[in-house]
Amino acid sequence: MSGKFIVIEGLEGAGKTTAINTVANILKQNHITDLVYTREPGGTPIAEALRNLIKNGLEDEPLTPKAELLMFYAARIQLIENVIKPALARDQWVIGDRHDLSTQAYQGAGRQLDSQFMTILRENVLQDFRPDLTLYLDISPELGLKRARTRGELDRIELESLTFFERIRNKYRELAQHDSSIITIDASQTLEQVTLTIEQTIKTWLDYNANT
Amino acid sequence: MSGKFIVIEGLEGAGKTTAINTVANILKQNHITDLVYTREPGGTPIAEALRNLIKNGLEDEPLTPKAELLMFYAARIQLIENVIKPALARDQWVIGDRHDLSTQAYQGAGRQLDSQFMTILRENVLQDFRPDLTLYLDISPELGLKRARTRGELDRIELESLTFFERIRNKYRELAQHDSSIITIDASQTLEQVTLTIEQTIKTWLDYNANT
Repeated sequence: MSGKFIVIEGLEGAGKTTAINTVANILKQNHITDLVYTREPGGTPIAEALRNLIKNGLEDEPLTPKAELLMFYAARIQLIENVIKPALARDQWVIGDRHDLSTQAYQGAGRQLDSQFMTILRENVLQDFRPDLTLYLDISPELGLKRARTRGELDRIELESLTFFERIRNKYRELAQHDSSIITIDASQTLEQVTLTIEQTIKTWLDYNANT
Repeated sequence: MSGKFIVIEGLEGAGKTTAINTVANILKQNHITDLVYTREPGGTPIAEALRNLIKNGLEDEPLTPKAELLMFYAARIQLIENVIKPALARDQWVIGDRHDLSTQAYQGAGRQLDSQFMTILRENVLQDFRPDLTLYLDISPELGLKRARTRGELDRIELESLTFFERIRNKYRELAQHDSSIITIDASQTLEQVTLTIEQTIKTWLDYNANT
């Protein structure tokens, strides 16, 4: 099977890191061992520098929502062109911690940026590049943030209000409903249940895509 | 007179720094003394961090033309919202070392990025924000780069080919022709002649705009 790009999406505290490990384990059990891991924003030197500016800001300068959006896409195109596409061309599999769905949910619904502008930006930057499969880990902001807080200090984006995250969750769910390459996982289950669901989902997906 | 935004544009070695000083001196002679100086990309902490990435790259990672374009606009919106607009609102005058015309010329004509995408990006980021006056210092790439080289090491963009700069110059001239807020200065003249031309241009412009 040629290289594929699988993305894990969801709110803070949804369990993305555990899900990434689960997906990697299932792939390895299926003899897919040449894996590349990415995270967004980030994953290249320039994209990580942009991530740092987005996450932590600089000298208390307010980061405008539009600049934030443009920096997300600058980081994404660097990652796609310099890491993801070359890996797929070498028949490696790429597991992504977030990708474009995050921008649609966080910047589109969270920051409520103009949807027409976002569509044009996305189409021009990504063109026809899409993940082969996205697992969206669905969780309520209350439960997700409660889990995230146990990890330690929250960054600039994670400090937003609960209504901000409610809008993001609703957008995630709406986008997942209209895209057959996105599978929604109920991340409010116990860790064991979530892991089992992900394992079963990936196995089924691999069976369906065994000959592509 | 309320605050105005005057921009100096042109190829490397056109004499922008001298022109900025000339404009500042004439303004001061006309009792406009509360001046703010900007440079692009840059002029805020975040925009300067973006400038550094654009100019010098990071760890030899190729910077894609699209990421470069998005980073220019991220830096520009930060500068406009956090520096230029607040200064104009305080009735300060802003003198800019480059602004959006550079992006249209360098990224549009130099890098030959899709013009429709650039237009949409510009309209969405800048909306109706425009300089009150732009002085475009017109010089041939041969003469400009010869002058620039005497200043020392050239950066990533300055190392492009002569045809790259020819395309940029042609674009600058074309844009200047179709925009009455852009005045073209023949920068191939001697330094004294260029300075005199700029002085006369600014004086005339101030007379015309004395009551706005």
